[in-house]
Amino acid sequence: MDTGEFRRLWNEIEPIGRAASAGGEPGGYVRFSWTEPDLDLRTWFHTQAKRRGLRYEEDRNGNLYAWWDAEKEQVIDPDAPHPHGAVLTGSHFDSVPHGGAYDGPLGIVSAFLAVDQLKADGAILKRPIGIAAFTEEEGGRFGVPCLGSRLMTGAIDPGRARALTDPDGVTLAEAMSEAGGEPDLLGPDPERLARLAAFIELHIEQGRALDGSESPVSVATAIWPHGRWRMVFTGTADHAGTTRLPDRRDPMLTFAFAVLAARKEARIAGGVATVGRVEVEPNATNAIASTVTAWLDARAPDEAVLSEILEGFVSKVSERAGRDSTGFEISPESETPIVEFDASLRDRIAGLLGGAPILPTAAGHDAGVLSAHVPTAMLFVRNPHGISHAPGEAASDEDCAAGVAALAAVLRDLAC
Amino acid sequence: MDTGEFRRLWNEIEPIGRAASAGGEPGGYVRFSWTEPDLDLRTWFHTQAKRRGLRYEEDRNGNLYAWWDAEKEQVIDPDAPHPHGAVLTGSHFDSVPHGGAYDGPLGIVSAFLAVDQLKADGAILKRPIGIAAFTEEEGGRFGVPCLGSRLMTGAIDPGRARALTDPDGVTLAEAMSEAGGEPDLLGPDPERLARLAAFIELHIEQGRALDGSESPVSVATAIWPHGRWRMVFTGTADHAGTTRLPDRRDPMLTFAFAVLAARKEARIAGGVATVGRVEVEPNATNAIASTVTAWLDARAPDEAVLSEILEGFVSKVSERAGRDSTGFEISPESETPIVEFDASLRDRIAGLLGGAPILPTAAGHDAGVLSAHVPTAMLFVRNPHGISHAPGEAASDEDCAAGVAALAAVLRDLAC
Repeated sequence: MDTGEFRRLWNEIEPIGRAASAGGEPGGYVRFSWTEPDLDLRTWFHTQAKRRGLRYEEDRNGNLYAWWDAEKEQVIDPDAPHPHGAVLTGSHFDSVPHGGAYDGPLGIVSAFLAVDQLKADGAILKRPIGIAAFTEEEGGRFGVPCLGSRLMTGAIDPGRARALTDPDGVTLAEAMSEAGGEPDLLGPDPERLARLAAFIELHIEQGRALDGSESPVSVATAIWPHGRWRMVFTGTADHAGTTRLPDRRDPMLTFAFAVLAARKEARIAGGVATVGRVEVEPNATNAIASTVTAWLDARAPDEAVLSEILEGFVSKVSERAGRDSTGFEISPESETPIVEFDASLRDRIAGLLGGAPILPTAAGHDAGVLSAHVPTAMLFVRNPHGISHAPGEAASDEDCAAGVAALAAVLRDLAC
Repeated sequence: MDTGEFRRLWNEIEPIGRAASAGGEPGGYVRFSWTEPDLDLRTWFHTQAKRRGLRYEEDRNGNLYAWWDAEKEQVIDPDAPHPHGAVLTGSHFDSVPHGGAYDGPLGIVSAFLAVDQLKADGAILKRPIGIAAFTEEEGGRFGVPCLGSRLMTGAIDPGRARALTDPDGVTLAEAMSEAGGEPDLLGPDPERLARLAAFIELHIEQGRALDGSESPVSVATAIWPHGRWRMVFTGTADHAGTTRLPDRRDPMLTFAFAVLAARKEARIAGGVATVGRVEVEPNATNAIASTVTAWLDARAPDEAVLSEILEGFVSKVSERAGRDSTGFEISPESETPIVEFDASLRDRIAGLLGGAPILPTAAGHDAGVLSAHVPTAMLFVRNPHGISHAPGEAASDEDCAAGVAALAAVLRDLAC
């Protein structure tokens, strides 16, 4: 696998959904699900499948597949839970607003290149190999991350999913219909899951544990438990000049306290907590806000720590709301328990890759959702600056090529 | 003046620019300058002038006038600075987003009704009486309050005004042109100012000093010095899960600190400070913000106190930005020194109204801008709940009718 091959295929998707960067405004990528860049990437996926003679398929939840079917299926390990199943690899196309180029697409591009490598090596499949592109992994448009894999595994009610809205008030059902999909068919797909023997997701590292390491690729042990909560702070809109301070019910104060409290609780407990999204009504310079809506993202090494952060946060913010005479409501948008990846698969892969580092991650992934149903593993490709979900996200072509080689080795071991 | 007359005229503008109120969303009025509701209100103004035989005029800055010309101008007070000038009254049509019905329009409706009263009484004018509607008083669309009166008095550079943008990136020049105006003509109008002997602005009270008082109308002594500052907090967008807390440059933390610091500094010094408007980039739940832009509104009884608030605020927020490794920049969008209204005019009016209460206000007004050039006074009509810049803003029809009677008495005294 030379870096030129990686770069050639990578360049095909590089311009899609690229956001202008001007005058200090963020650039990066805006690839929201079911928008034009996403549809262009789906077309590109279809083209890649055809180019390689892979069987293209879209499931009922909008997830895409390119199948390399085995000529004759063989039982590799009769004691394994899915002796006849397929090995699936892949990731997602969609981005956070102004996100990086690699988070998601690297796993899909690498999967096509790994298949090319196996084909060039004359590999004979004992199991089918599939390449997947899951939809709305970031929740960047409809708010719920890993939406495609959650729907497939039955982890979210299809009615709730259909009714999710984007910031313009467009529902997922409307967005899917507009793109030619059939939202009425959304829902769990247990037969498809039952045909999978393993899922391997290659992803850019989000952090810099591999910076300075000898290995450009690591294997995941676990995904931290994490969640998103929607917070609504309510008060009374009033004149910013003439309303006496003691008469105010200013929800911006309670919100500001909450931002600092989230950080403090996370620091004390040993997790992370972030407020990155805020909407204010009426959002006028000379009016006290009536409502501040904001989202809390919190993650921790285990569920006890995550609960500790959330409980401390809610208790302190509620108390502050009492002092501010404001309202404070918090409700979960998604809560994901800890994911421990399949230990034997993880150790098998780490051994195969010559003792690659084994690390946990605080980022959610479709692999985390699938791991409740299918033996699952993740490979991370080195990110020299550790930046992710931002335009500065980067990986060298050499490390990406090494990632493809590692993925090809894993697929060969599991499927050939 | 009976309340029925007030109500009939008031009902004509009541539906214009009314915002839907549903499911906890704010209602009230959205009457931004040069948008459809504003143009409807301008047409209504023109109609009112025609209906009363008043001479309609639009100045180079988009401010409207309806003139009741004196048959024969007489010198009332040869020692006054404008012995031959006109008495102007009026206010503005535009609102803050989801503002109240009364802030602005009450002064214009009351002016037409006061003229009706004088005409019904058979008053003979010794000076012209004009009714004015100043444009963009709230700064709700282009960010600079009292824009029409500032342009007229030369308090803002016309080039800067033309280039002001609304949240959609539309410039004032484009908005004016679209509405048939000529933005090239924007600028100071000293000849028009020189023709004014006095300006009287009737306005809803913003506060509740008159609640429980015997008087439904008060006279203003002064407008607190006040200003708006734009603040930009910068950091590094990154993944909300995988970026370690010590590695973060999260501008949301510095912003949150600033919200609380503004309140604290204002409380200690004896003024008010508010953050009511915020914009976040990229504004995603699972990404640390790269930029938070927010606006500070601060006001105080005198300029020393206002400086004390601002200096304390900037020093504490700068220090916090250092600890957060974030950037913090603050720049004024408007700064208005204290306005002391003409004392002899104020005392004359208070006497005329049978000893009406004399009170300062923390709200900016076109009267504050004009008072640097023309003897100016303000009348406030009782606001039982004190709410302003919000849908709950209210005044009783009885108090509004009393306001009209007071304004008519003042106009009679000054111009007849």
